Order: sequence, then structure tokens, then C-alpha cells
Amino acid sequence: MSTAGKVIKCKAAVAWEPNKPVVIEEIEVAPPQANEVRIKCKAAVAWEPNKPVVIEEIEVAPPQANEVRIKIVATGVCHTDLYHLFEGMHKDGFPAVLGHEGAGIVESVGPGVTEFQPGDTVIPLVISQCRECRFCKNPKANQCDKGWAADSHDVMALAESRFTCKGKKVLQFMGTSTFSEYTVMNQMAVAKIDPAAPLDKVCLLGCGVSTGYGAAVNTAKVEPGSTCAVFGLGAVGLAAVMGCKAAGAKRIIAVDINPDKFEKARVFGATEFVNPKDHNKPINEVLAEMTNGGVDYSLECVGNVAVMRSALESCIKGWGVCVLVGWTDLHDFAARPIQLIAGRTWKGSLFGGFKSKDGVPEMVKAYLNKKVKLDEFITHKMTLGQVNDAIELMKHGKCIRTVLSVSPQ
Amino acid sequence: MSTAGKVIKCKAAVAWEPNKPVVIEEIEVAPPQANEVRIKCKAAVAWEPNKPVVIEEIEVAPPQANEVRIKIVATGVCHTDLYHLFEGMHKDGFPAVLGHEGAGIVESVGPGVTEFQPGDTVIPLVISQCRECRFCKNPKANQCDKGWAADSHDVMALAESRFTCKGKKVLQFMGTSTFSEYTVMNQMAVAKIDPAAPLDKVCLLGCGVSTGYGAAVNTAKVEPGSTCAVFGLGAVGLAAVMGCKAAGAKRIIAVDINPDKFEKARVFGATEFVNPKDHNKPINEVLAEMTNGGVDYSLECVGNVAVMRSALESCIKGWGVCVLVGWTDLHDFAARPIQLIAGRTWKGSLFGGFKSKDGVPEMVKAYLNKKVKLDEFITHKMTLGQVNDAIELMKHGKCIRTVLSVSPQ
Ligand SMILES: NC(=O)c1ccc[n+]([C@@H]2O[C@H](COP(=O)([O-])OP(=O)(O)OC[C@H]3O[C@@H](n4cnc5c(N)ncnc54)[C@H](O)[C@@H]3O)[C@@H](O)[C@H]2O)c1
Ligand SMILES: NC(=O)c1ccc[n+]([C@@H]2O[C@H](COP(=O)([O-])OP(=O)(O)OC[C@H]3O[C@@H](n4cnc5c(N)ncnc54)[C@H](O)[C@@H]3O)[C@@H](O)[C@H]2O)c1
Ligand SMILES: [Zn+2]
Ligand SMILES: [Zn+2]
Ligand SMILES: [Zn+2]
Ligand SMILES: [Zn+2]
Repeated sequence: MSTAGKVIKCKAAVAWEPNKPVVIEEIEVAPPQANEVRIKCKAAVAWEPNKPVVIEEIEVAPPQANEVRIKIVATGVCHTDLYHLFEGMHKDGFPAVLGHEGAGIVESVGPGVTEFQPGDTVIPLVISQCRECRFCKNPKANQCDKGWAADSHDVMALAESRFTCKGKKVLQFMGTSTFSEYTVMNQMAVAKIDPAAPLDKVCLLGCGVSTGYGAAVNTAKVEPGSTCAVFGLGAVGLAAVMGCKAAGAKRIIAVDINPDKFEKARVFGATEFVNPKDHNKPINEVLAEMTNGGVDYSLECVGNVAVMRSALESCIKGWGVCVLVGWTDLHDFAARPIQLIAGRTWKGSLFGGFKSKDGVPEMVKAYLNKKVKLDEFITHKMTLGQVNDAIELMKHGKCIRTVLSVSPQ
Repeated sequence: MSTAGKVIKCKAAVAWEPNKPVVIEEIEVAPPQANEVRIKCKAAVAWEPNKPVVIEEIEVAPPQANEVRIKIVATGVCHTDLYHLFEGMHKDGFPAVLGHEGAGIVESVGPGVTEFQPGDTVIPLVISQCRECRFCKNPKANQCDKGWAADSHDVMALAESRFTCKGKKVLQFMGTSTFSEYTVMNQMAVAKIDPAAPLDKVCLLGCGVSTGYGAAVNTAKVEPGSTCAVFGLGAVGLAAVMGCKAAGAKRIIAVDINPDKFEKARVFGATEFVNPKDHNKPINEVLAEMTNGGVDYSLECVGNVAVMRSALESCIKGWGVCVLVGWTDLHDFAARPIQLIAGRTWKGSLFGGFKSKDGVPEMVKAYLNKKVKLDEFITHKMTLGQVNDAIELMKHGKCIRTVLSVSPQ
């Protein structure tokens, strides 16, 4: 589809001056500005939980003040999309356009936007960075107080969207909604990136890879020579493995109940591989034996409270640090108080601890400079129309990341 | 009682040389070395759970290799003594001599002890510092691998003791057992302190005060200008308040369900006071309103998993740090994963994070230099014979610390 308009010539009655008859003239009508038109485009709409998403024609309203309308070129499918659709508490509203791991090009900008212009290469951000709130100003935090997630992560899809479909309001998921040819976002949640970056690769920096990598490097702050364990070897866990390696870890123990994942884990730097199903004792005991008491750092990249407990218990007393990355709100996580009293630390990581607008362009640079891998995460390439196939692959653990091409670049 | 012996003169048949009759002579028999005699003394024996302790005459065997026998001059009563007696799972053996917050004087030393000699002023340590294990060598940790607590904190009273009573082995509690006129400890769990220190004050540095103070300063690492909340205003919590103040906290919110404690909290530096019973909404919401979103640091000094959750939830997202200090093994602590994912950190503190042998003499110095308060914790003074009264006072929240005088100095 095209947003360009043509100049129209037509007849009109023009009142040239007061107290005179009007004159029929041929006039020219300029087309609307790009940022004034509603765009009709394709998007994958999740109408209700536990059902396939449906490719629909939707309408995307113009960007409003401080907003940017983005043509999505490519998007990854992350487990959090599945979580929303199949696993969560469905407190969030439907219908929604899912997808939050995308990359694209600015199509138009709303009033007050100075930082972006049409044609800019960008990555939509699941957390904003307004640079003004006390969280943005504090170097310890990346939980900007202004974005969709400011008050609560309970509701992942919000009505503050520019989408309609069949006359119905469609919600925006995680402030992004990249399973759409066009989306509209506040400029504080958009990162401008190097135009040389291949969008069908760097889209993964919009969520999974930045999340896992940063969880190791920024949140756990893995130290050189240390021993790490990563639980769950999806893109998030594999990126955590890569982060541990970049930080100089000596041993990286990759843990998954799907042994198909171990081969990839080796590519990213894992040195040992443990399938909990191969053992008839608790995984924390297995790791304690392998490491003379426990690992220095563990990262939970599954989203399962039993694994969260195991990950903590796998840490060595005195200084072990466990980072929660996996997502669930179905249950509480829990452990015995002595686990912490004995010197362990339990942390969590949101978007890898990166301040989003600062971090993503740096990660793009690191990819272009071959400091971080991205291509190796991509096991499948499909189109937006095949999004349900991509979802099925992930559901059954048959992919690391599928990248969907959305709009032509 | 006295361990000194006299030289005894008596008759004996002496064989002066071979092949000659023996000669009846008056000889002198030197007394046994102090470190060879069994000492009979008074101790408070906990024969079984949920019963008053009983003052008994016990026997204290001589110190063995690397051990030091200590005359206990004074001891505090800490909540952990009550926990063992009334609240815990009683997995530990009885009978035991409780008490772990003492100070005393070295009576004799076993073979291989070079660091101590009789007459040294010391504080028994609930955690050892061997200076050789990887935990002692790591600046991040204070969980020495050699002491009673090395493998498990489940069992707080161990048979590795020098006590007997009525022919029965009596267990040593937390490696110390200060409710006894004499106790025997490994030298790696004894701190030599300034002989000028008043033992009936600095005994509190053997547990509660060092624990709370260090939890704020060493574990939470409270920063200047920050806002803190301390849950539970026993000696541990009040010492945490003192630690927050020493670290430069601007606001220190003292939380207790017993409002009698607030007056003392003010003495140690608390700026605000909250009784959860005065509010009909959750305490974390009360604190969030008072602090525009939550405190920078919270310290749980109660030993209750519901309070542990509240303490975490009272922290601000992004950078809030919650430290568990209170003790319980009856239940798991728990929270929602998002609490950590949103940027909070959950830690625990054992003995305030101090490496025990290094930290305690420094705390003694700080007291002598008026940098930390001790006298203000002491609400009652009694004798060892009144230990059950002291336990009752604490059970009913009627004291901060009772100090028992045990042996004359
Ligand atoms: N904190 C954040 O900012 C953030 C961002 C993105 C994703 N996430 C979450 O990270 C998690 C991982 O996402 P992903 O896209 O890599 O998912 P994924 O489904 O590709 O990978 C999950 C992996 O965990 C493995 N697994 C399942 N149960 C296991 C168990 N008991 N023990 C060990 N391994 C087990 C699976 O076999 C799979 O390999 C999800 O929970 C997702 O919601 C969090
Ligand atoms: N981690 C360690 O190394 C260590 C060392 C010593 C003591 N401890 C533990 O620290 C805790 C405190 O010890 P203490 O000697 O100061 O005990 P204490 O009994 O003197 O003080 C506990 C305080 O908590 C208050 N309290 C009870 N329930 C509360 C609630 N729901 N909300 C707020 N306040 C509440 C009580 O009123 C009391 O003032 C105990 O659990 C003890 O076992 C831990
Ligand atoms: Zn994601
Ligand atoms: Zn912000
Ligand atoms: Zn040690
Ligand atoms: Zn104690």
C-alpha cells in the first residue's frame, strides 16, 4: 500500500472579494500530509486467547504529538508473545496486535517530534527511555516511569493504540505491536540505529538478545574467570550464554530439558550441558557437585517458578547471584530464607538492564563490529502471513528465533 | 569456682636408683595445668523445647587442639535463643546450652593455640573466620567454610561440644553457648578485643548489634541521602537503624507492631514511625505513599516470611534493595517474579556481613570511640540465674536487650 497522494485538479466556486459574485474556477487540492492519513495495512490480530492470530486489514491512525509511525520491516517471535496468547492470566484485553521484537523505518512523525524523520532506521522499544524521569536519571535503573509498563506489568496490551480493525479498537501489545506493517509509538520508546544495519537481523535486539545478553553483563555483572549456569536455552538463554562469555566467564553450564538446544549453546560459548531429565536428583545438587558447591552466577531464562528456585539454589553460598529473566505471573517464586541469609543475591532483569534508547544502538554497533552474534539465533525465516507457523514452532521448541519479514524495505 | 590448684606435699616410695630398696620420701605433686582439668561450673541447660532452661552444674572438658576455654563474663539474650527454644522446628538436638552473644576472658588454651593466652579479653563468634578457606579469602563473603554453620544452618546445636551434665552429653548452641560460666571454642571463632572494653556492653557485638548494623552498612550498602525502612525494632532492627544513620540515610522509617519500640528507634536515628496495625491497607502501600513509590533500602529484622514479602514490596522499583536479617526456617519466603524483574534486589545478611574475627574488634573500637552506641540497647541487667526471666521479657516484647552477668570478671 502507499501513503503518497496526488495533487487533484477540480472545479470550485471561489469568492475572490467581498460583495462580488463567486467565480467557478479550476483549483488544485494538495494531498494530505503523510502524518495526516490513516493507513490501511495488514496485521496479525489476536482476537482472543488460545486461538491462532488472524491476518487482517487494520487501520493505523496518524501519529499524534510526540509519536512516530513506523513501517515494520522484520520482526522476531519471542516467548512473551506466546505467553500473552496462551500461558498468561489473560487479564489483558483482546483483541491486540502482538509482536514486540521488530525493526523498521519511520514513515511519518507527529507534531513535536524533532529526533526522528521519515526514512530513519529504527527499533521499537518495549521499555521507554524518556531521559527525564528519576528512573532514567538514575544510572542503576532502566524502568522509565513514562512508558506503558510504568505502573504495572500485569496488563501487557493497552488501549492507548492507534489501531482499529472492523471498526473495533485493537490494543497495542507491550507498547510496540510489531506483527503489523505499520505501528505508532511514542518517540521515547524508539531507538534510531545505524542505517547500515540489516533489519531482519537487528530486530532481535528489540527484545530477546538484548535481554539475555544484558542480564549477564549488566544485571548479574558476571566477572572474568567465573562459573555460570544458564537455565533455558531459547534466544534469551543463548544470549545470556553469549553475555557470560563476553564477560569472561570460564565455565558456562547450559541447562535445558530439550537437549536439541545444546548444539546451539556451544556456538554461543557454553562449556557444559546438563539436561535435568538425565538426573534423578535435584538439578541444584547436580550443579553443586560439578562446581564444588555451586555456581557464581545463575540466570533463569525459562519463566517457571520451580526453575527460579533451582537457579537460586544452584548458586554458591557467600556470593552467588541469581538473576530472573523468564517471565510468569501465574505463581509466586519462593525459597527458604537461609538461601539468602547464607549470602546469595536474587535479582531480576528487565530488557537486560539496558536503558533502552542508549543500549539498543550500541548493541547494533556491537553486531556490526562482530562483537555480538545475531545470525546464529535465526533458525527460520518466514513472512508475516506465516506467523501462526512461527508460533507453533516456538511452542514445540523447534526453533530459536523465527524472523518474519513484514513490509518490504 | 576456681581452677587453680595447689602444690600437694605427700609421702611416696621413690626408687632412686636400680637394684636399691625404694625410699619413702615426702614429695611435691604439682597441680594439673589449667588446660588439663575439667571445670565444674554453672550453666543454663535447655533440656527440651518449650520448657524453661535449668541452671545446672555442668562439666566443661579441657580445650583440645586449637581450642580456647573462655570464662564468660556477660551475655545478651537474642531472639535466636528464643527461636531455638520455642519457635523453630526443633530438628536440633537437646539438651543444649543456649546463648551466643557473650564476652569473656580466656581461661586456658589447648595445644597449637598461639593467638590467645589466658587473660585475653575475647568475644565468642557465631561464625568462624579461619582465614584460609575460599570464603574467608573472598572479600565478598563471610560464610567461613570451617565453622559449625559451614554445611547447614538447619541444626543449630551440635554434639561437637565439651559439655556434660549428669553424665549426659550437652550440645553446643551456634558454636558458642554463652549461658555458661565456661565454654570451649575453636580459636577460629574467637575474637581478641581491646582489654579496656566493658564486657557487659560489648557482649552485644557478639550477635545482635553487629548483625543489624552490618546488614545496613555491609550488605544493603545504604547510600548517603537515601530512604530506608527497618521492619522489627528489637536490638537487631535498632542496630540496623543505627547502621542506616551511620551510612548517611536521610529518612529512616521504623516499622513495628509494638509501638513501645518507637521511642528507642528515635534514639538510634529513626525519623518516622509506622505501626502496621494503625493502617487498613498493606504496609507496602503505606510506605509507597510516604516515599513516592517506595524506599531505597528495606531491612527485615523480624523473622517472618509475610514481613519479608512486605519488605521487598516496600522497595522502589529500579534499584530498591531488600535485606533479610530475621531468622526462620518454618516457611518459604515468596513474592511475584515481577517484583525482582522490575529491578529490585533481594539479599540476606548473616552476622551483618562482617568477617567475624576482623569485624568484631573493629566494632569494639568503634564503641570505645563513641562511633556506635551499645548502652542504649540494654534495658535490663540480670544474672545468669535469672535467664528465664530474661527470656520471658523478650518473648513479650518488654525489653530490647537483657544483659546477664555470668562469671565475676
Ligand atoms: N525479563 C525480560 O525482559 C524478558 C524479555 C524477553 C523474554 N523474557 C522471557 O524469557 C523467557 C525465555 O524466552 P525465549 O523467547 O528464549 O523462550 P523459548 O521458549 O525460546 O525458550 C525457553 C527454553 O526453556 C526451556 N525449558 C523449559 N522448561 C525448562 C526447565 N524446566 N528447565 C530448563 N529449561 C527449560 C525450553 O526447552 C526452551 O529451550 C520467557 O519466559 C520470556 O517471556 C523476559
Ligand atoms: N541473620 C543473622 O545473622 C541474625 C542474627 C541475630 C538475630 N537474627 C534474627 O533477627 C531477628 C530479630 O532479632 P531480635 O533479637 O532483634 O528480636 P526481638 O524479638 O527483640 O525483635 C523483633 C521485633 O519485631 C517486631 N515484630 C514482630 N512482628 C512484626 C511484624 N509483623 N511487623 C513488624 N514488626 C514485627 C517485634 O515487635 C519486635 O520488636 C530474629 O529473627 C533473630 O533470629 C538474625
Ligand atoms: Zn520478548
Ligand atoms: Zn524515563
Ligand atoms: Zn574460613
Ligand atoms: Zn543472635
